[in-house]
Amino acid sequence: MNFSEEALLKHKKAQGKVGIYSKVGPMLSRNDLSISYTPGVGAVSTHLGKNPGEAYDYTIKGNTIAVISDGSAVLGLGNIGPYGALPVMEGKAILFKELGGVDAYPIVLSTQDPEGIIQAVMAIAPTFGGINLEDIAAPQCFEIERRLSESLDIPVFHDDQHATAIVTLAAVINILRITGQKPEQVKVVVNGAGAAGLGTTRLLLSYGISDIIVCDSKGIVSVDRSDINEEKREVAGRTNPEKRTGDLSVGLQGANIFIGLSVAGALKPEQIKMMADKPAILAMANPVPEIMPDEAKAAGAYIVGTGRSDFPNQINNVLVFPGVFKGLLATRTKKVDDRIKLAAAKAIASCVSDTELNPDFIIPSVLDTRIASTVAQAIKDNIS
Amino acid sequence: MNFSEEALLKHKKAQGKVGIYSKVGPMLSRNDLSISYTPGVGAVSTHLGKNPGEAYDYTIKGNTIAVISDGSAVLGLGNIGPYGALPVMEGKAILFKELGGVDAYPIVLSTQDPEGIIQAVMAIAPTFGGINLEDIAAPQCFEIERRLSESLDIPVFHDDQHATAIVTLAAVINILRITGQKPEQVKVVVNGAGAAGLGTTRLLLSYGISDIIVCDSKGIVSVDRSDINEEKREVAGRTNPEKRTGDLSVGLQGANIFIGLSVAGALKPEQIKMMADKPAILAMANPVPEIMPDEAKAAGAYIVGTGRSDFPNQINNVLVFPGVFKGLLATRTKKVDDRIKLAAAKAIASCVSDTELNPDFIIPSVLDTRIASTVAQAIKDNIS
Repeated sequence: MNFSEEALLKHKKAQGKVGIYSKVGPMLSRNDLSISYTPGVGAVSTHLGKNPGEAYDYTIKGNTIAVISDGSAVLGLGNIGPYGALPVMEGKAILFKELGGVDAYPIVLSTQDPEGIIQAVMAIAPTFGGINLEDIAAPQCFEIERRLSESLDIPVFHDDQHATAIVTLAAVINILRITGQKPEQVKVVVNGAGAAGLGTTRLLLSYGISDIIVCDSKGIVSVDRSDINEEKREVAGRTNPEKRTGDLSVGLQGANIFIGLSVAGALKPEQIKMMADKPAILAMANPVPEIMPDEAKAAGAYIVGTGRSDFPNQINNVLVFPGVFKGLLATRTKKVDDRIKLAAAKAIASCVSDTELNPDFIIPSVLDTRIASTVAQAIKDNIS
Repeated sequence: MNFSEEALLKHKKAQGKVGIYSKVGPMLSRNDLSISYTPGVGAVSTHLGKNPGEAYDYTIKGNTIAVISDGSAVLGLGNIGPYGALPVMEGKAILFKELGGVDAYPIVLSTQDPEGIIQAVMAIAPTFGGINLEDIAAPQCFEIERRLSESLDIPVFHDDQHATAIVTLAAVINILRITGQKPEQVKVVVNGAGAAGLGTTRLLLSYGISDIIVCDSKGIVSVDRSDINEEKREVAGRTNPEKRTGDLSVGLQGANIFIGLSVAGALKPEQIKMMADKPAILAMANPVPEIMPDEAKAAGAYIVGTGRSDFPNQINNVLVFPGVFKGLLATRTKKVDDRIKLAAAKAIASCVSDTELNPDFIIPSVLDTRIASTVAQAIKDNIS
């Protein structure tokens, strides 16, 4: 039985993955009922009616987030709608709990209209201490995240943009530890200008990497192109310092690091040969990467990472989101800014010690249970 | 320490009452991750993208409902907002799980605008197999429930209207068993014309009780009054067969059953004396009833019920909602109609055997663990 068959069976047997339970024990006696339900709950309700800010202390809000998707860009499967998205959101929810101790609830939406999504999330926000947006297509995802961040007094995190950016930066930090380069010395090509590609580029810029070229399916994203959306244009204005134009191959000439957030097979062996000496290839298209690791190595790649668990250097968002929300909730942080994202990336990178660090181990294991606490602690240290 | 102090302490210690857990075990190995998350979950997502109806089998939708409030009419506390409502919704959620085996998730809303509530609930509906509306003020609650029921393909249940109606009818059925009267022989006064009062009146009419007088704070709700909303007018047109006008005392003359869904102290001993011989008093205002049981008995009441756990005959919604949704989910019923509500009321009434039945035991205990299964089975029998 392969993973697909096993997954279908397991999901059907359990009827999904997320269950709820009572944190205050069973309701077996009149006394239990009187405290958790009527009349005792009336005292809690009255108190919170007058002191709504204390909802963090007396309700689930303090340790609960929503994992929300409209199903418009699920994994690499595209726009498969809310029911297609739900198993992924449930998977995220249990990873939040298992790895970060955060109660996360999956919510999938019947609308893909940005205004409808924004209104729905704002309406249900009082229940939650944070919002994790997931698998929402670009470019709508940018406006949705931005407007929700502005309007809500709880942190809004778009996993595809921010978690991908953080874990990729963690990998890049450790690549630089191996090669001995400084951020300002390195040439990076980001292939893919969707939520993940643009989010990652923005965070790399914040980290101090200024020589970045972003490519989409039509080539280098440059300010003189008329076929790009506002999000790409904003990034184009801050990247491509040599003002190159042309396809990915033009961008790759002399580059040190290739970051693929695009599609299977987007990188050819001969393109790796155009890069600088000892190049690093992060081929993160899922489930089939931009180039397979053995092919990349044969073409001269010194370091290769993918999103997959069956190769070394699995660069996966699961290293990020449980710890980030654990830290955001613990500090009751209201906005996710670059300072927090940079702290999270450095914390993940730091979980690989100098003695462990090598080209086949640039990023900690997704099963390393220290990660979430380390990331959360880094956020606490940066907030206080 | 009283219930209020204990409730505050317990809620704070546990940080709310609802937790989430993984129904598929811990995520400790790459294999766990590969099945519940990537890449295995992709097979489930692909399958549901093509067969959305099977979300009931492969996701939480099949056994999960949302418990939703806007905080506009919380318990007897009034409009205390979403944070005041959240502890109550959490309490409902764990009772759904503990008594009915149904996963229920509390959602409180930042809007009290009917259109905003309707849009928000429609947006998040794909996640859920049912919607339980709770503590939403009348008369908006009627439109909200009606429009959501029409628009959604999952059952929508407004607890304050429908659960109260069902449990009250169950009590009335057993009062009639004791008195030997038929539905068409009995005179009933319903005091209170909010969600609960009107919902209960409508269900009593469906059961065949035609001689009902509804009173609000200004007296008998009759068609010639100009100060009543459309909901009251509709009910006025189907009640008050003798076309009485005046206050509650006028309505009570010769009545057999008083149903209080109003406020503390609304019924006076001398008013009980105006009723028919051996009257039944269901004084369900919470936490302080329309009249205290000892006072009612002293004034001649033969049967007395309240919403409280510290007196006999506790008539509480908790007897209704876990079993109703257990049955609705098991049968994948899309609408909650009167046939279902009548079946639920009869099932609850039937849990009191002929030998148990007496004026101090007209309704089963809220801790009777048979109730939810009995109600669910009655719904199954009525659907098939």
